[in-house]
Amino acid sequence: MRHSLAGRAESAIQARLLTRLRDEGPLSKAQLADRLQVSRTTVAAEVGRLLELGLAQEAGPAASRGGRRSTMVDLAEDIRFVGIAIGATGMTVGVTDGRLATLATRQLGCDIRQGPEEVLGIALAGVREVLDELGVEQPAGAGIGVPGPVDFDRGMSVTPPIMPGWDGYPVRDAVSRELGCPVLLDNDVNLLAIGEQHSGVARRARDFLFVKIGTGIGCGIVIDGELYRGVDGCAGDIGHIRVSDEGPTCACGNIGCLEAYAGGAALARDATVAARAGESPFLAEVLEANGVLTAADVGLAVQRGDASAVQLIRGGGSRVGQVLATLVSFFNPGMIVIGGGVTGLGHPFLAEIRGVTYGRSLSLATGSLPIVLSEMGDEGGVVGAARLISDSVYAPESVN
Amino acid sequence: MRHSLAGRAESAIQARLLTRLRDEGPLSKAQLADRLQVSRTTVAAEVGRLLELGLAQEAGPAASRGGRRSTMVDLAEDIRFVGIAIGATGMTVGVTDGRLATLATRQLGCDIRQGPEEVLGIALAGVREVLDELGVEQPAGAGIGVPGPVDFDRGMSVTPPIMPGWDGYPVRDAVSRELGCPVLLDNDVNLLAIGEQHSGVARRARDFLFVKIGTGIGCGIVIDGELYRGVDGCAGDIGHIRVSDEGPTCACGNIGCLEAYAGGAALARDATVAARAGESPFLAEVLEANGVLTAADVGLAVQRGDASAVQLIRGGGSRVGQVLATLVSFFNPGMIVIGGGVTGLGHPFLAEIRGVTYGRSLSLATGSLPIVLSEMGDEGGVVGAARLISDSVYAPESVN
Repeated sequence: MRHSLAGRAESAIQARLLTRLRDEGPLSKAQLADRLQVSRTTVAAEVGRLLELGLAQEAGPAASRGGRRSTMVDLAEDIRFVGIAIGATGMTVGVTDGRLATLATRQLGCDIRQGPEEVLGIALAGVREVLDELGVEQPAGAGIGVPGPVDFDRGMSVTPPIMPGWDGYPVRDAVSRELGCPVLLDNDVNLLAIGEQHSGVARRARDFLFVKIGTGIGCGIVIDGELYRGVDGCAGDIGHIRVSDEGPTCACGNIGCLEAYAGGAALARDATVAARAGESPFLAEVLEANGVLTAADVGLAVQRGDASAVQLIRGGGSRVGQVLATLVSFFNPGMIVIGGGVTGLGHPFLAEIRGVTYGRSLSLATGSLPIVLSEMGDEGGVVGAARLISDSVYAPESVN
Repeated sequence: MRHSLAGRAESAIQARLLTRLRDEGPLSKAQLADRLQVSRTTVAAEVGRLLELGLAQEAGPAASRGGRRSTMVDLAEDIRFVGIAIGATGMTVGVTDGRLATLATRQLGCDIRQGPEEVLGIALAGVREVLDELGVEQPAGAGIGVPGPVDFDRGMSVTPPIMPGWDGYPVRDAVSRELGCPVLLDNDVNLLAIGEQHSGVARRARDFLFVKIGTGIGCGIVIDGELYRGVDGCAGDIGHIRVSDEGPTCACGNIGCLEAYAGGAALARDATVAARAGESPFLAEVLEANGVLTAADVGLAVQRGDASAVQLIRGGGSRVGQVLATLVSFFNPGMIVIGGGVTGLGHPFLAEIRGVTYGRSLSLATGSLPIVLSEMGDEGGVVGAARLISDSVYAPESVN
């Protein structure tokens, strides 16, 4: 067990060594020299320094390639990253190893409107439980995602429409103080995107969009393998794109926002109306029993072939497709990944999104465009958060 | 006068030297060493090689900074680039010096539907005239823009909706053979964007959109100072975003495309309807006199306070604003530049675009977002084309 915090990479070559080991697994010094196009002497010296920093370890002789055997190098086996993925109505916290494999996660209930102190208190208590369970004394870093715009450089939320009390709260610094390690804060959807890129369906994609449809709707944008955040950090905020000049009032106060048609809260609202209007005996029954309907109930109704529920999710899917068609014409991505709770609605929802997106975009841009469901689920945010902070620990900007 | 073609940069340092000289003007060897963070010895050796390649020249002693005087270095004064900006109904060809200052341009009529051989014949004849006029025997390279999707790597148009006969025609290679120099082909709007970035209103912008509203409508996307072309090279094709489920039929065969509402051809069509319906005595008079109406006639009518014409351009501007608001929420750019012929419609058009874009986007994303008219006009495409090929001559990918 290590008691002191591992260091960060000190040189551009160390950074390249560490990210190779993270993304490819253990490699021999000879392989590392080949991949980085530097001499074996340089690799040996830099690996030596990484051993001292507690970031790498040697792992026995490599298989022979003829000549002198090379030594295998791996990330230090005790590196641990914390990932905290906070949503509007719940969160997932977890701990990964140095290669971002998840060792343990925990789902916790919360309401983002309780404000930062309470919500972060829940998150930190959960993190401490998981760290204790795994016997981790000191994580190497932590990433946090929150459901709203983030000033990445200052590490705080800015003007988040659904997060009263969070505007300007120093989330990054507060959590860093509590955990005693480097922390980075980002928008939840950005982290889902890079989590999917690290371990999910977007592993080979360089330019793709990750569209999260949960209580709200947002989009992570990856360009040439890197997150694009926009000049004010609010790129991808597609939930408040106006899809109709009439339409329902959104939580943000405007009318006709995509989120107010197709987000989880919107589906629950419309399902309640349908139940009360006698259009769906099943939904009426659930409403009677629980006093409230959720998007998940709509999913159950769809599974039972409830026509009214199918109509609801087709309507939502169609609005999502309408926006995605516009984004495909503009951005010509290589892949669109759909994630978030509403993806539990199953095939008819995805089918509607695909139909409208493919039907309304340029054929040149959709010819080889996969529109697929996330493979990562709730774990995506944890892996993405770990990925974010691992980039900073393994390849800090100061050495690039 | 040089008789043989200048070489291309051979090393990454030469590439950085040349692009510095292009973008900043003459610099002393001492300044170049400072800016590139390499030794003066290295600068002296690499500059020596650039002199041999005919790409740079020495320009006398620099002002004293104390100690030994440094020598000024400039781009070779006889470097000439050709820019060819082909639009749907006309083109601009021109020649620039090594720093991309325009030395001469020529406006030529054409109809893109005449096909590549005829249109490129007109372009090349114009280019030869300008080269003769300037006494240039051999340009260092040429850039070409065409109004449709381009396969950048293969140097040809692909499935261009308004360009019959161009699909798969080897534009780049045909022009390269004729001019005897390296040639690159790109979409016209991409070139307008980098032209504006080099010499226009976007000089200090890293992430911006250039929206061209001419006969058609398209968008150039610059991310972190570089053009973003999308995975199939058709990013920015916003003219065919569907803004209405009803609406007029577009030249592409779909209905409700932005271009079919707000492009120059659409305005001319709507103006003709208004003239025939007796809604605008002025437009009726022009139609009577010329037998046809153009977007420019609508501009004239607006200047005379013709209510029907003002209504037309407000309608078009509003549809453009509707799409831009969506793109602002998605992309969070640092600037939007509006260019193309329709910008001749004047203030009411820009005012409508701004009003709708600002009114419908997230306030976080529009707080410091300038929406401005292009400063470059027709010259933008020529400078952008020269910029494209200069990047390849000064900083070829093989040395980066």
